[in-house]
Amino acid sequence: MKPHETPTGELHRRRTEWLRGGGDASDVVLSSRVRLARNLAGLPFVNKATRADLAVVLERCRDAVLDVGLGERTLWVDLRESSAIDRALLLERRLISHTLASNPKRHGTTNVGDPRGVAASIPDERLAVMVNEEDHLRLQAIRCGLALGEAHAAVDALDDQLEARMDFAFSPRFGYLTACPTNVGTGARFSVMLHLPALSITGDIERVKRAAGDMSLAVRGFAGEGTESVGDFFQLSNQTTLGRSEDAIRDAFERRVVPQVIEYERQARRRLIETRRVELEDRVYRALALLREARLMTTEEAMRHLSVVRLGVTLGVLTSPSLEEVHALLLLVQPAHLQRLIGRAMTKEQRRVERAILTRSRFGGEARDGSAERAQG
Amino acid sequence: MKPHETPTGELHRRRTEWLRGGGDASDVVLSSRVRLARNLAGLPFVNKATRADLAVVLERCRDAVLDVGLGERTLWVDLRESSAIDRALLLERRLISHTLASNPKRHGTTNVGDPRGVAASIPDERLAVMVNEEDHLRLQAIRCGLALGEAHAAVDALDDQLEARMDFAFSPRFGYLTACPTNVGTGARFSVMLHLPALSITGDIERVKRAAGDMSLAVRGFAGEGTESVGDFFQLSNQTTLGRSEDAIRDAFERRVVPQVIEYERQARRRLIETRRVELEDRVYRALALLREARLMTTEEAMRHLSVVRLGVTLGVLTSPSLEEVHALLLLVQPAHLQRLIGRAMTKEQRRVERAILTRSRFGGEARDGSAERAQG
Repeated sequence: MKPHETPTGELHRRRTEWLRGGGDASDVVLSSRVRLARNLAGLPFVNKATRADLAVVLERCRDAVLDVGLGERTLWVDLRESSAIDRALLLERRLISHTLASNPKRHGTTNVGDPRGVAASIPDERLAVMVNEEDHLRLQAIRCGLALGEAHAAVDALDDQLEARMDFAFSPRFGYLTACPTNVGTGARFSVMLHLPALSITGDIERVKRAAGDMSLAVRGFAGEGTESVGDFFQLSNQTTLGRSEDAIRDAFERRVVPQVIEYERQARRRLIETRRVELEDRVYRALALLREARLMTTEEAMRHLSVVRLGVTLGVLTSPSLEEVHALLLLVQPAHLQRLIGRAMTKEQRRVERAILTRSRFGGEARDGSAERAQG
Repeated sequence: MKPHETPTGELHRRRTEWLRGGGDASDVVLSSRVRLARNLAGLPFVNKATRADLAVVLERCRDAVLDVGLGERTLWVDLRESSAIDRALLLERRLISHTLASNPKRHGTTNVGDPRGVAASIPDERLAVMVNEEDHLRLQAIRCGLALGEAHAAVDALDDQLEARMDFAFSPRFGYLTACPTNVGTGARFSVMLHLPALSITGDIERVKRAAGDMSLAVRGFAGEGTESVGDFFQLSNQTTLGRSEDAIRDAFERRVVPQVIEYERQARRRLIETRRVELEDRVYRALALLREARLMTTEEAMRHLSVVRLGVTLGVLTSPSLEEVHALLLLVQPAHLQRLIGRAMTKEQRRVERAILTRSRFGGEARDGSAERAQG
């Protein structure tokens, strides 16, 4: 299969699976992701590899991935040749990690980055493969809503197809060998992207975070590892993999932990709507008003308001915009997406202007709840 | 002349001169006020007076004021008999001071307040007389815009009419005698209510305040003595009166000091519109959006947003609402006015709800700047 010609050209206009909406428990769970870490046998781990080693890994993995094919089409981006905005765009779509996006040049003073790459299924972006991140291969499958089983099956199938073409480093005693010990064994990590605005408003979010920490779960922000949560979006993932089967790990995570957090959030939402309805409406209408009327808007502020609007939509306080429109903006307000959408590189200040124009144009003219006291504009 | 029957009954629905809008320099100056302090000869000052003394003063002054008549009709409120909400309403309209509004009962344990009262011209409230505040009589004349001369002439005429009916305490050496030495002499205080939002945004307001202090001018908040400025409304007044003619004092204040502050504010507004237009528009549209969409609103927040909207209107950033509508709301969002408007006593929490409904209903359905990207609601 031939890779797509202009890799990230129109990517910004497409929906991405993890923000598609829908699926089980989609009021709280944006998406589910299963990630596997694999390394090629006979080649050093990335942090020990020479540039030549990395180039060999990159070539082998690319060939295998393109041979297998990830979807209708397979996007392949060689990160040595990619621009900063390309990498930022891929990061905002969660197709690559911060590590790959920053693309450090450990080897020499060349302007070309280390041999790294990423593949993704087009148009859905449900499958992706990072090459030469912390491990030689990071395979991920994403599904909207709570669907770790389906994502797991998808990434397992990809794993089998790739293993038929490459030798993975494997120890009969430890399982799959990985660069970081926390991934050794199954090499699997399960995560869900949660929207927890009500727990945040009631202040119970800190309790949930502590409980997650006690269960060795990682709580991260919207943009993954090392990021603060913005707009009350939290990524919850399992931390340890050694010594238990992937299915057992997933089962505990999906059937006990995540449903418990979902239930906490739903209870908090019910309490808000039953006992603090006006305060809730106040927050929701203020957020929407600022998205509709501000002339300058940072990414962080936009995310914060979009989060509150999303809460309003899921609780029926707002009948418009749709969740789909909110999700589309969660992606488009990000710096790289915004610049691609507008079609030019912009300073931070210019982005604040264009971001406000974007949210205004998307939400400005929509009919909303038809409240009686609001006359026609 | 007979006093009006239900003193403050419909007062909350009327405009008040100091927020009428118009007049000279009305982009910056809301209103001008001249106040005279007078005391009856042969009776102790208020702070030395017995309850019986105060009752005598109250009766004599009321009779004289009603005999003179302040306008088409004369409102007379005996503060012994007034409710807390009546007093708050009069305070919000700047017809009485905090001292009269709090109505302390220095004399005994009776539930009835000290003998105090207030008179005002109806319907314009351009003239008012407080009885048994710090002095036996505080006469005030108010004009919208910068018009201290006109206000001075009006309060002087009232002073003459009252002096024809009563003996004022007067010393050939010191002039009119007053309870507080800062008022001895002419007994006159001149003040203007200024709207200085641009100086506040640029941060230059602190410099203006310091300069005013150096010139022995008092800078006070929206609600007069002892109050913080809210929404960038500042009351600027002369402090010292001894040893100079009223006309000389007023002249220096009106022709040099106030025009200088007006010019600073206008320069700051021009700078904002020329060099920080988008930031200015952002502030203005956010303020209007929150007034249109919030479901809970404190007095302080409403004032803050109304101040920014007023700036937007004066600079032509907004073509609607009108200044008149903004001024009307500056008064109606105050707690006592809001309760009178709604027709019942309310808790602070209930007022926050009703205040948001009020600002929403007043601003919600208005056409504004017709910006192209904003479709019909």
